[in-house]
Formats: sequence, C-alpha cells, structure tokens
Amino acid sequence: MIDGAMQPFALTLDKFLDHASRWRPTSQVVTAREDGQVARIGYADLAARSRRVSAVLAGLGVQGGARVATLAWNTQAHMEAWYAIMGMGAVCHTLNPRLTADHLSGMVTRSGARLLIVAGDLVALARQIADRVPQDLQLIVIDGAAEAGTAALEPMIADAADGFAWGGFDETAPCGLCFTSGTTGAPKGVTYTHRSSYLHTLRVLQADVMAISGADVVLAVVPMFHANAWGLPFAAPAVGAKLVLPGRNADGASLARLIQSEGVTVGVGVPTVWLGLLEHLEAEGGETPSLKRIIVGGAPMPPALMARLEARLGVIVQTSWGMTELSPSGTVAAPHDPRSPAQSGRPAIGVDLMVADAEGRPLPEQRNTEGHLHVRGAAVVERYFGETAPATNPDGWFATGDLARIDEAGNLVITGRAKDLIKSGGEWINPAEIEAVVGALPEVSLAAVIGRTDAKWGERPILLVELREPDSVSDDALLAPLKGKVASWWIPDEVVRLEAMPLAATGKIDKLRLRAEYGAAAGGGAT
Amino acid sequence: MIDGAMQPFALTLDKFLDHASRWRPTSQVVTAREDGQVARIGYADLAARSRRVSAVLAGLGVQGGARVATLAWNTQAHMEAWYAIMGMGAVCHTLNPRLTADHLSGMVTRSGARLLIVAGDLVALARQIADRVPQDLQLIVIDGAAEAGTAALEPMIADAADGFAWGGFDETAPCGLCFTSGTTGAPKGVTYTHRSSYLHTLRVLQADVMAISGADVVLAVVPMFHANAWGLPFAAPAVGAKLVLPGRNADGASLARLIQSEGVTVGVGVPTVWLGLLEHLEAEGGETPSLKRIIVGGAPMPPALMARLEARLGVIVQTSWGMTELSPSGTVAAPHDPRSPAQSGRPAIGVDLMVADAEGRPLPEQRNTEGHLHVRGAAVVERYFGETAPATNPDGWFATGDLARIDEAGNLVITGRAKDLIKSGGEWINPAEIEAVVGALPEVSLAAVIGRTDAKWGERPILLVELREPDSVSDDALLAPLKGKVASWWIPDEVVRLEAMPLAATGKIDKLRLRAEYGAAAGGGAT
Repeated sequence: MIDGAMQPFALTLDKFLDHASRWRPTSQVVTAREDGQVARIGYADLAARSRRVSAVLAGLGVQGGARVATLAWNTQAHMEAWYAIMGMGAVCHTLNPRLTADHLSGMVTRSGARLLIVAGDLVALARQIADRVPQDLQLIVIDGAAEAGTAALEPMIADAADGFAWGGFDETAPCGLCFTSGTTGAPKGVTYTHRSSYLHTLRVLQADVMAISGADVVLAVVPMFHANAWGLPFAAPAVGAKLVLPGRNADGASLARLIQSEGVTVGVGVPTVWLGLLEHLEAEGGETPSLKRIIVGGAPMPPALMARLEARLGVIVQTSWGMTELSPSGTVAAPHDPRSPAQSGRPAIGVDLMVADAEGRPLPEQRNTEGHLHVRGAAVVERYFGETAPATNPDGWFATGDLARIDEAGNLVITGRAKDLIKSGGEWINPAEIEAVVGALPEVSLAAVIGRTDAKWGERPILLVELREPDSVSDDALLAPLKGKVASWWIPDEVVRLEAMPLAATGKIDKLRLRAEYGAAAGGGAT
Repeated sequence: MIDGAMQPFALTLDKFLDHASRWRPTSQVVTAREDGQVARIGYADLAARSRRVSAVLAGLGVQGGARVATLAWNTQAHMEAWYAIMGMGAVCHTLNPRLTADHLSGMVTRSGARLLIVAGDLVALARQIADRVPQDLQLIVIDGAAEAGTAALEPMIADAADGFAWGGFDETAPCGLCFTSGTTGAPKGVTYTHRSSYLHTLRVLQADVMAISGADVVLAVVPMFHANAWGLPFAAPAVGAKLVLPGRNADGASLARLIQSEGVTVGVGVPTVWLGLLEHLEAEGGETPSLKRIIVGGAPMPPALMARLEARLGVIVQTSWGMTELSPSGTVAAPHDPRSPAQSGRPAIGVDLMVADAEGRPLPEQRNTEGHLHVRGAAVVERYFGETAPATNPDGWFATGDLARIDEAGNLVITGRAKDLIKSGGEWINPAEIEAVVGALPEVSLAAVIGRTDAKWGERPILLVELREPDSVSDDALLAPLKGKVASWWIPDEVVRLEAMPLAATGKIDKLRLRAEYGAAAGGGAT
C-alpha cells in the first residue's frame, strides 16, 4: 500500500524574502540614515540585491557552512547581508559593536570567520578585531566607502550576477551564530538553524504572540547584531510588513521622527528606548497616533514606565521574556490579555516551561511557586557552539539561569537571576524583588542591587540607583518602601547614587561591572 | 569545529493537545448534543481521555501506520478519537456520512481500515459499509450505546490505562486520510502527514490568516469528517481557544443558540450555513453580539449574503479558498484587508500560487490574467494515496483544476472550475461568471450553470436556480442582468427552477448530479 505524500518544503529562511518578493514586492524596508533622511527599498528589489551579495560572497570563496561575520547596525545593507549569507547556506555570525575589540576578536577567533561585513562607521573597530585574530580576516564595507585594506561591497554588487540560487540544503543547516551578552558569565556561542529560526518566526507571527500582519509597520529597535533582532527581519518579510530600521540611532528624537514619518504601528525594543521616546515627546511635544503596540523585553519592565507609555502614547505594551539561547523569544504577553509589567505572557506552541529546584528537579507544584526556570522547544539551544556536551539535561530541558514563577493562568513571572542571588548569613536574598520595589518609585530611573563582600555575613546587599533628578530623594526615602515588603535583613546596607547606570551592550544593567566596581568589602567607586 | 545545535522538536500533532493540556487545561471543548444541551470538557481532561482511547486502540491491535476510519459528526468523542489515532502514529481516515455506503465502502476498501469508529446514530450506515468491504471491519461506537456486532468505546475508556505515550515517530509519518468530495471526478485519497498538518496549523494561526487566539471561542461548523474541519481541531488547542462543536445540527436555530450561549467569537463554515443563521435571526429575531468574524470557504461567497451578514451581524466576513489537497486552506482574506466576496485573500508564507495555460506552462503575466491555478507548499499534496505517479508537475506545482486570476495586490480571485467550462461552438463559456451575476440577484438563493448537449453547438448553457420564494421573478428578469456583462452567446438557453439545489456532502452545489439530470440533449427533470 502506498501512503501518498505531501510536498517537500524545506523550512529555510530564504523563503521569507522570496515570499515577500513575490507577494508583497513593493512593501518596503526603510532605513534611517545618519543625515536624517531615509533610504527605501521594496522587498523584490531587496531580494534581488541580496542574491547579488550571495554571488559576491561565493566569488570570495564563501561556501556552505562557513561563518561570515557582520558588524553593523539595523540597516538595509545589513539585512541584505543576512539573507545573502543565510540563503547560500553560510552562517551569519553577528557581532555587537558595543563590545570591546578584545571580546569580539575572541568570538571571531572561535567562529573562524574569514570575512567580516562591516558598517562604514565601524571599520576602526573591525581593524582592531582583524589585528587580534589568528586567521586572515577580510573586511567588506557596507553603508560606506572602502578604506585601505578593505573592500566596498556596493561596487561588487553592481558587478555581480543576478539570480543566485538560494536554498537546496537541509533545513537543519546552521544559519546564524550569536554569542551571549556575557552579563552574567563568559559569552557562549548559540548556533541558530534554518529550521529553528523558521519555526520561531511562525511562532511570533501568531495572533497571540507578536501578531504582526502585512498591514503593520514594524520599527525594529532591537539590534540585528544580537539575537536576530528578535526575529523581526524574518517575521516582517514573511507577512510582507513594512520594516523600519533605525540605523545606529535609537534616541527618543530619532525614534519619534521615524514613527511619525513612516506610520509605525508596532515598536519593538528594550524598555529604555521607550523611556527615551517618552521623555522626548514629553519635553518637545508631539504625538505618535499610528503607534498601536510596543513589544518590550530583554530587561524587567518598570511598572511606572509601562503605565506612562500606555497613558501618554495610547498604546498596548506587550511584555516578553527571551534569551539569546531561545532565538530569542520565549514568551510574549498576548495583545488582548490583561497586562501586567511583572508578567511576560504564556508560552506559545513550540515552547514549554518548567520550574525546578537548584538541582534541576521539577518542583512538585508548577504554579505559583518560585523555582529555577527551564525551557524546551524547537528554537531553544541544545548544545553551544564549539562544545560537545549538551546544554540540556537528560530530559531535554535547558536551565535558563532565571528564577521565576508561573501564575495560575500560565503567565511567566521572572523573579530574578539565579546568579544574581545574594547569600547573606547562609540565606538567599533575591535582588530582583528589592529592585522592583525601589524601581517603581517615581524618582528612580534605574535601580540595581548587588552583594558586597561582608566579613560577618558573607555578603550584604547594597542598592545602586540612577535618579531622574539628582538629590531629589533621600536614602531613607529610597529604602522606606521596602519595609514590610521584604524581610528586614534584605534591606540594603548602603545606597550608592550613580550618574549613569552602566549598561551592557544589549541595554541591560551590567551587573558584572557593578560587582567589579562596588562588590568588594571596602566599598568603592565615586558617587 | 562543532557547530552547536538547537533542540530536536518533532512537528507532531499530539503536541497541540499536550500544550493545551499544560497551558490552557480548563479551556473547553463544548459539544452540542441532540437533546439541546451541551457537553463540556477541559483540554487537560480531553487529552487524558484521548490517551486512554489510544490505549484501547493499541489493545485492539492498532499499530503505527494503520488506517483507522471514523464516521462521525463534530463532537468531543470524535476529537478524542482523532488525537488517539494520530497521537499513536496511526492514520485517521475520516468518512463523510453524507456519502453513500457504496462510495464509502470503496474508500474503506482502499484504505484497508480494520476499525471503524462510528457515531451512535450512524451505525446503520457503518454496517452497510462493513457488509461491502472485503476486510473484517470492527465497529466501535462513540456517542452512543453498542448494538449487536459493535463495541461501545466508553466502557473501554473507563477500563483503559492512563498516560499512553504519544509521538516518538518521524514527523513525516502520515496522520490522516481524506478522499476528495468527488463533485468533479472520482474521489482521490489525500494523505496528510504530521508535519504538513502542523505547518498548516501554524499558518492559519497567523494574524493575517485565521488569527485565532486563546481569547477566541471558535465555532467549527466545517465538518471533521472532511478536510480536517479546516484544521480547527488542531488550531484551537494549539492556542488554547475554546472550541464549540455543533454535533450533527448546523441549522440556523442550532447555530444561533450555540453562538449566544457559548459566546462564540469566530464562526467557520461554508456560506450556506451562515445563510441559515441569518434567515433564522431575521425570522425569529435575536442578536449574536459576541460574534466578531465569520470565515467562509468551500464555495463562492454570494455578494448579497456577505453584505447581509456584515450588516445584520456586525461581523467581518473573511473569504477563503482551499481544497482537500491543501489540508485544506490555501488563502484566507486577512481580517484587516479591504474585503470583497470575489477575492479569497493572499497566500501566507508556506503557500505559493501560479497561473498557467491549459498545459501547465506559467503565464508570462501572473497578475490580472485568468489562468489555470497551480499551488505549491508544505501542506499541498504531492502524491495521492495508493498512487505511484506524482500529483505535481516536474516543477512541483499541483494543478488545482480551478480557474483564477491574481489581482495586482496579490489577492486570489477564483473564476471557475476548469472541468465546469462549457464548450459551445468551439469556444469556452465559464459558468462561474454567469452564476456570479445571477446569484447576486436578491430573489436568488443559489444559481448554477451547466452545459447541455446540443446537436448544433456541442453544448449550450442552461441556468438552474433555487429561488428564495417561488415564482417571485420571471425567466427574463433572471437573464436580463447578464446583457452587457457576458457575451450574448453565453446567455443560457433555458432556466430551470429547482425547489432545492442538490448539494454534495460538503455543501457545495453538486454539478455532477446536475449534469446527470439536466445535461442530456433532451433536457429533463421536474421543475
């Protein structure tokens, strides 16, 4: 008996741009340039240019499986490079320009990339990387002219052949490589596959997740140099949505201008960029009537900021949770669900969550109990780049390092980072709970609690704050709201006022740096 | 160099019910019973019962790959059987109770099923099938008590073990078998795979397609016995939506009662069922304020009906196009796009369309040109059940048999069925164009045009109509609107008035029967 069959259809990422090219050929990718103007291109033209970039790369000897590094902002040229690299079966190794040359060269050494596609204004950093890696690293400049020792991509595109054939490889082939931000440990490489990123895209497109439609205009503030810009360069062409790329400038004024001129309906980025937008609009005036939704993630959402955004902009704020290791989206609060800044939504099909004890054993009660968050799914890391041991336990769960509880309705509430926990007198203090209380004060922009080495207790918590206005509030007033909300011995021993909270390259508070500067027993650092 | 890896995650359908069971355990499947009451069950309990059904089937000797037939309405028990069969790697062969025992036994003979799961009120038909097939066919009764020679499932569920292990097979394993409706030719078997139906589900869940969310209450009027009920028994648990199953009654009064009592937000079914709902509400009064959207397909949408539905019910009507061979959804008009009854929406990622000449060669101009519609995609048939030859051409395109054009924006407009074309004097007449004009008249419920054998011209068109009220309009008045809209020689030679248009088991006008009764040169049939 012959069973019959459905058509073969490899889940490879080139299909997204091809689909947009055929069905939404004139829907645009818009890039903000440094001169305040924008560049526009339709998906059909972008796909054609991107295939020419593949031809250029093939001419330079790039083969399937080879890593090609990129060091660039959110721009059309970067997107063309992504699809050129991935479409031909090579691996796009994105580099974060806000990391140091030492860090980046370590990553490039490990990836073995021999080509680095670099934005014109990042060539100096690229040269430093090239100087530090053992392999020959050829620099190809996009968004700018070639300098000595580099080659400009644009003239090569002009000379390249049309219609380079994409796909034809197995859908489990790697397409991308991204190292974790390293805010809580040494960076690890996460290898994305065509299949995993394709399935991730179909997940975020659901009405209960990012719900992006062809009628949307999506502003991707989340960087393409880290964790796939939350998958937006895949999701937007998959449905033919107009995609707005802000280039390197994510300040409030730049974002407001783009939202207004391009009619942005959905903005996606870490909370701080929306704070910048809000402060700009409050200071300068102006409205953003086209904006319907803001999707935030990558850091806890301050409740006051969420309330101000919804009130001032008239938008729905969708909180989310993800990690580099998750491609990166884990959960997104559905647009129509009751919203809370502490909640990050329910997992959609393709993601499963579990809370465990410190040894990874599932807690007997999975609801309303804090535990170590584990995740499983089609777009979750199984094994880090260059490693032989799995990143998962024998049951296939990946330990996220986050502490969390899951409420009765299945919503994820991140309660802290396991590595941020402070051990004081043999007991654990969760800094995230303290930060949530202090961070909710109207005078506070950002708050962080770290452990300081203490001769008697092992560690004691100290509070670091960045205030909206200096000296607007006393130390006592900062700590007073904690009474009754956390145990008295959790209350920080000291308040340190910072002019600017150190942020990691992904916009998260850099606790490694805070601990290095303020974690020693002597105290330290200027206030 | 070790590439790293993402987690293995087989795209198997059991995951939908498992996900609902873990994340929306109390979201319900509601079934209308014959007594006017409803039965309710949460997804967690439904999944547990369904696993027990798998244990029962395993005890009866069902193994992976084996076909298990079902002959039942849209009910909880049928859904439990679906997941039980598919979850264990067997193949669910759905049978349409509106077909004859001769037709059905032919299908069961070909599928080789040895078990038939049958609704209590369909046992007589099941016996007729069993009598006609060469193999032993065991009858298992759901939704009813056992009769002589059958076994009731419910007592076996009570005795079965919990926790039957689902999955563990390859995602390309077959999960379902459905024969085409045969309105235009001999029925052919379409084999669905776990992977194809999983990807179909992710597609219809997109915001631009069916946009079903966990907050929705979905009324699946489309039958589970044909073409997977458009995938709703997969899509609803995948997002945890409440699913309302109408049992065997799809009359307007029954649907109105269910919509009102269950708070249905999205209704899915062929146009005629919504006509029934409308006529019931207009005759009896009543409102359906929870209903936001109606998704129609399976037959052309009469413009007047669409306008009445949107005006009277305050809903958005989403037109669509699909086929058994497409799992079955091809295109769905996006909720936010401009709507037209003639358009069926754009293809979402995973579906590609092409118009060709009669030999299957792509037309040079793919927009605004009528041609033979071809389709390619992850959930499109490649080879029919039991056949060795592919159903696709060498480029992988499946010829749908539909005539269509694609408008500038990429919307599909079905213009007819290739096999319905009438050849008159050596030239082609497209009956669908005539039907669209006549069907738009307010006096007309249903209109069909077929070719009648003609000594001089080969074929001549005749018009068959079912009127809202008999004798409300003259033949001339029915034909007059055609003048100037179609060529004069396209105007039907005769009008035949039918009390009731013959409908095939899927709700479509049965043109095979019309041609058999009215297509001979002598004319014939009572008016």
